[in-house]
Amino acid sequence: MKRISLIGATGSIGVQTCDVIEQHPDLFELEAYAFGSNVDVAEEWINRLRPKYVSAKNIEVLEQLKPRLTYEPLFFIGLEGLIACATAERTDVVVTAVVGAVGLEPTLAAIEAGKDIALANKETLVTAGHLVTEAVKKHGVSLLPVDSEHSAIYQCLNGERREDVSKIILTASGGSFRDKSREELEGVTVAEALAHPNWSMGAKITIDSATMFNKGLEVIEAHWLFDIDYNDIEVVLHRESIIHSMVEFKDAAVMAQLGNPDMRGPILYALSAPKRLEIEGNKRLNLREIGTLHFAEADLTRYPALRLAYEAGRAGGSMPTVLNAANEAAVELFLNGEIAFLDIERIVEQAMETHTVIAEPTLEEILQIDRAVREQIQQGK
Amino acid sequence: MKRISLIGATGSIGVQTCDVIEQHPDLFELEAYAFGSNVDVAEEWINRLRPKYVSAKNIEVLEQLKPRLTYEPLFFIGLEGLIACATAERTDVVVTAVVGAVGLEPTLAAIEAGKDIALANKETLVTAGHLVTEAVKKHGVSLLPVDSEHSAIYQCLNGERREDVSKIILTASGGSFRDKSREELEGVTVAEALAHPNWSMGAKITIDSATMFNKGLEVIEAHWLFDIDYNDIEVVLHRESIIHSMVEFKDAAVMAQLGNPDMRGPILYALSAPKRLEIEGNKRLNLREIGTLHFAEADLTRYPALRLAYEAGRAGGSMPTVLNAANEAAVELFLNGEIAFLDIERIVEQAMETHTVIAEPTLEEILQIDRAVREQIQQGK
Repeated sequence: MKRISLIGATGSIGVQTCDVIEQHPDLFELEAYAFGSNVDVAEEWINRLRPKYVSAKNIEVLEQLKPRLTYEPLFFIGLEGLIACATAERTDVVVTAVVGAVGLEPTLAAIEAGKDIALANKETLVTAGHLVTEAVKKHGVSLLPVDSEHSAIYQCLNGERREDVSKIILTASGGSFRDKSREELEGVTVAEALAHPNWSMGAKITIDSATMFNKGLEVIEAHWLFDIDYNDIEVVLHRESIIHSMVEFKDAAVMAQLGNPDMRGPILYALSAPKRLEIEGNKRLNLREIGTLHFAEADLTRYPALRLAYEAGRAGGSMPTVLNAANEAAVELFLNGEIAFLDIERIVEQAMETHTVIAEPTLEEILQIDRAVREQIQQGK
Repeated sequence: MKRISLIGATGSIGVQTCDVIEQHPDLFELEAYAFGSNVDVAEEWINRLRPKYVSAKNIEVLEQLKPRLTYEPLFFIGLEGLIACATAERTDVVVTAVVGAVGLEPTLAAIEAGKDIALANKETLVTAGHLVTEAVKKHGVSLLPVDSEHSAIYQCLNGERREDVSKIILTASGGSFRDKSREELEGVTVAEALAHPNWSMGAKITIDSATMFNKGLEVIEAHWLFDIDYNDIEVVLHRESIIHSMVEFKDAAVMAQLGNPDMRGPILYALSAPKRLEIEGNKRLNLREIGTLHFAEADLTRYPALRLAYEAGRAGGSMPTVLNAANEAAVELFLNGEIAFLDIERIVEQAMETHTVIAEPTLEEILQIDRAVREQIQQGK
């Protein structure tokens, strides 16, 4: 029996994690459930899975939730609550599904407490990859990706020798604006940006897919997860999102992982690997029906976000923190209707240009830079 | 250092095996070289790789070869020569690259002598799968596929648990006549049949690709190699031959192996697995350039050969022997211009219809049935 703490429980990944846990009551048990403010979703899953610990964003949310529960868990709030859930004594693995750099501290705390990590929060590795990977090594825990692309790569590396890898190939759907030129992006609306062609996801990641910052963050995530040089990470456009990603080996063989878009696959794999388990309602891939798969160059002129991510990754140190914080702040402004879509890239590029890299930033420096960049962008809007 | 015996050395796979051995003199050494009658090719590679043992089809061929060699190996001829090479004392692995059921006896002899097998001769498993797999188990040797499809499957199974497999998906290019209807096949010529769109191979396998008997033989081969039910082996048309084959797992994840068509990949992998080695001149896959991959149903009405192979496989016992022998004999008649292309299927179907299955045929029974079927077809032409 694997005991699971779920951090960021009411988002898309959080809910699908609950679904997967419920489907395998013989294998998984939900130990702790940390969410923000979506009381309706929290009520439903807490009552169904009955975790021992529950944490909410603040006391007001908790007060709304309490009378709606059919039993009495132990309650927490805020960042301390996230950390309490992430380090719960009996927990074996922590699924970190919060969005943004807020995932960093609970993830580090969980690693230090010896918990395995199923990482759905790519910002954690982007903003502090060196700290996280060092901690993982030091505490001997495992760090498994939940992102569909990185799960695919992880699966392609199954049974292979690390030294035989020549290249990682991340596929990118191109997001909601893939058929638009740079010029056509000038006037796009929030609603248009939120309509992803293949995946149904949260707002932040859907905007990131449209700008291609999502793929950029994934490039940096892949660098840390698989200890691979940026020159050996390639992005290829693949509009159907059927091939989730690939690995090329020394002998020119390419291994790929394919499937219909369903995040429960990568979630379950991160919890059960190397075992594979059935997923109820999971649609089997039928390539005869799909008929055609397309591939094209991910042009860095069309997608400056991807260029910026490679630049931030190669600059290293605190630069990816700046990229990530600036992007998070800019996406928030865009979702609130305060800036235009193309301003997101401009804001991130500007933040990077004015930053002086710190080579090996400490956690405190990262948190401080993260805060400073956000504030600057908030004020300058 | 791995010592290799190469059986069927002057064919397409044989020559590419020599190339691969020559590229890795620190890892591989050619111990024995058995060929038929292509003295020019044999001279070249024997002088370059200097195997200790050489076997030719007959004494006449040997007499032609001898004066052209720069050293004196030990010579053999005929089936005894094949077996002597396959069981050479210092040999670690035998690459069986002969075409047709003639590969059976040397392969069994090699297994009994404790040699690992790199199997490029699918007819061996088709005609006597139960005997070969039993012998492999009994003698604790490994049997690695050299066929690009089966090598792909083998690679997809890397690090996976056998019980997690739900389906094997073999890809088929469709061969030289894939764009022709059944009606259009009536008048096709030998030259047209020999023009394969993706792979440059020997005559027998190129005709087998055009009829789809090749894919049918591969279905039976996959059944034995991976111990999988015929209901869990699927064939999908994929005209580009870029995805070499796939495995679907319980969790609906599909692993695939991709690459440009180059048989040196599967050959080298069979010799070096789980290590992967560089191959000089091997063209890397570039999906951005390729742009599009197509998939379609492999229709059993359009391709009766595939239907017949499933029927023979499911009937089991001696039926696949009949399928294979009838196909070999019919292909020979077609290549000699003695029958029409569509006669190949008719002849195989007829041979199967008149055969009474023996459930667990012995080697003698298999060899006898094989001979009888061929003779009957030769006489009935």
